[in-house]
Amino acid sequence: MSTSLLDELTQALQCLPSVGPKSAQRMVYHLLDKNRQGALKLSNVLERAVHEIGHCKQCRTFTESDLCHLCVNEKRNSNGVICVVEMPVDVLAIEQTALFSGTYFVLMGHLSPLDGVGPDQLGLNLLESQLSSGHINEVILATNPTVEGEATAYYIAEMSKKFNIKVSRIAHGVPVGGELEFVDSTTLSHSFSGRSEI
Amino acid sequence: MSTSLLDELTQALQCLPSVGPKSAQRMVYHLLDKNRQGALKLSNVLERAVHEIGHCKQCRTFTESDLCHLCVNEKRNSNGVICVVEMPVDVLAIEQTALFSGTYFVLMGHLSPLDGVGPDQLGLNLLESQLSSGHINEVILATNPTVEGEATAYYIAEMSKKFNIKVSRIAHGVPVGGELEFVDSTTLSHSFSGRSEI
Repeated sequence: MSTSLLDELTQALQCLPSVGPKSAQRMVYHLLDKNRQGALKLSNVLERAVHEIGHCKQCRTFTESDLCHLCVNEKRNSNGVICVVEMPVDVLAIEQTALFSGTYFVLMGHLSPLDGVGPDQLGLNLLESQLSSGHINEVILATNPTVEGEATAYYIAEMSKKFNIKVSRIAHGVPVGGELEFVDSTTLSHSFSGRSEI
Repeated sequence: MSTSLLDELTQALQCLPSVGPKSAQRMVYHLLDKNRQGALKLSNVLERAVHEIGHCKQCRTFTESDLCHLCVNEKRNSNGVICVVEMPVDVLAIEQTALFSGTYFVLMGHLSPLDGVGPDQLGLNLLESQLSSGHINEVILATNPTVEGEATAYYIAEMSKKFNIKVSRIAHGVPVGGELEFVDSTTLSHSFSGRSEI
């Protein structure tokens, strides 16, 4: 069958999230017709990325070095604050605020016993050894405000308290620019219980 | 900078149509976290496709062989009918109807002098040599019903008439299952002028 390589490529492209048969086909024809150079480049970078990108030894985010560019920063390390997030994208989001100057710890997920994700899968032993070093003053829990995220935050809070480390959770409430009438009641109740004096 | 390979991959993924920085980032994390095997496979197939897939010597569609699987079919060749379409996807669409049993000719675009696309870029000399062979009885023009598509159809019709070959254009009208009130007036006027007796 002479179209097999086309079919194979259409199939292979569907490993990308939210790419189905139709968009994969569109991608195939676009690449072959208009951008063979870009396709070759993508093939090359993809292979290198899969082989070279691993996890940071300190914060577990994706990096091609032993330590990520945030963890090699001495100033951040000496800050004594660790911010715990679920995914590497969360690090990017927080970095964009330019407000946080400590280091991160990326769980790469949340506690989910039914899916076989326990403390070991989240690297919590690595976090524990960092907490026990005595250099950490505060742990900021920035996991997602979902049931699993809250459970994970609670677990890490308990762990941190063993070492007498201050633990805080990021505030949940009405988003800036949002309108009260469109905010769900759980968020609204959070914003009431977490109110601050002015 | 330790994130460079991640950035490079995010950049490279944007060669895919309708993939911007945000979706590229999502793809990167998805592949690295959940599907490194799929990413390697994609890298490999992509490279092979770019190097091995060329154009069919007879109909110009994409294929990894000299002739595509439709053009090697003797039965189709002896049918004496050529259907002219703009893109390889059009071939797939027509093949799905299972109504056409001749061969195709894929223009890989339409006449568009402003973009530097003339008869040569569409391989019309190749089509002309096929028409002059004397084996062709009919040319069906299935280019898109756009201004450029119509102009291309007209050009090929004139060319075919030189060889006294019957030329037809696919019918344009109200789509089956469509409702009259939602059909644009150009389509509706086509469906009136192209009416057939019952």
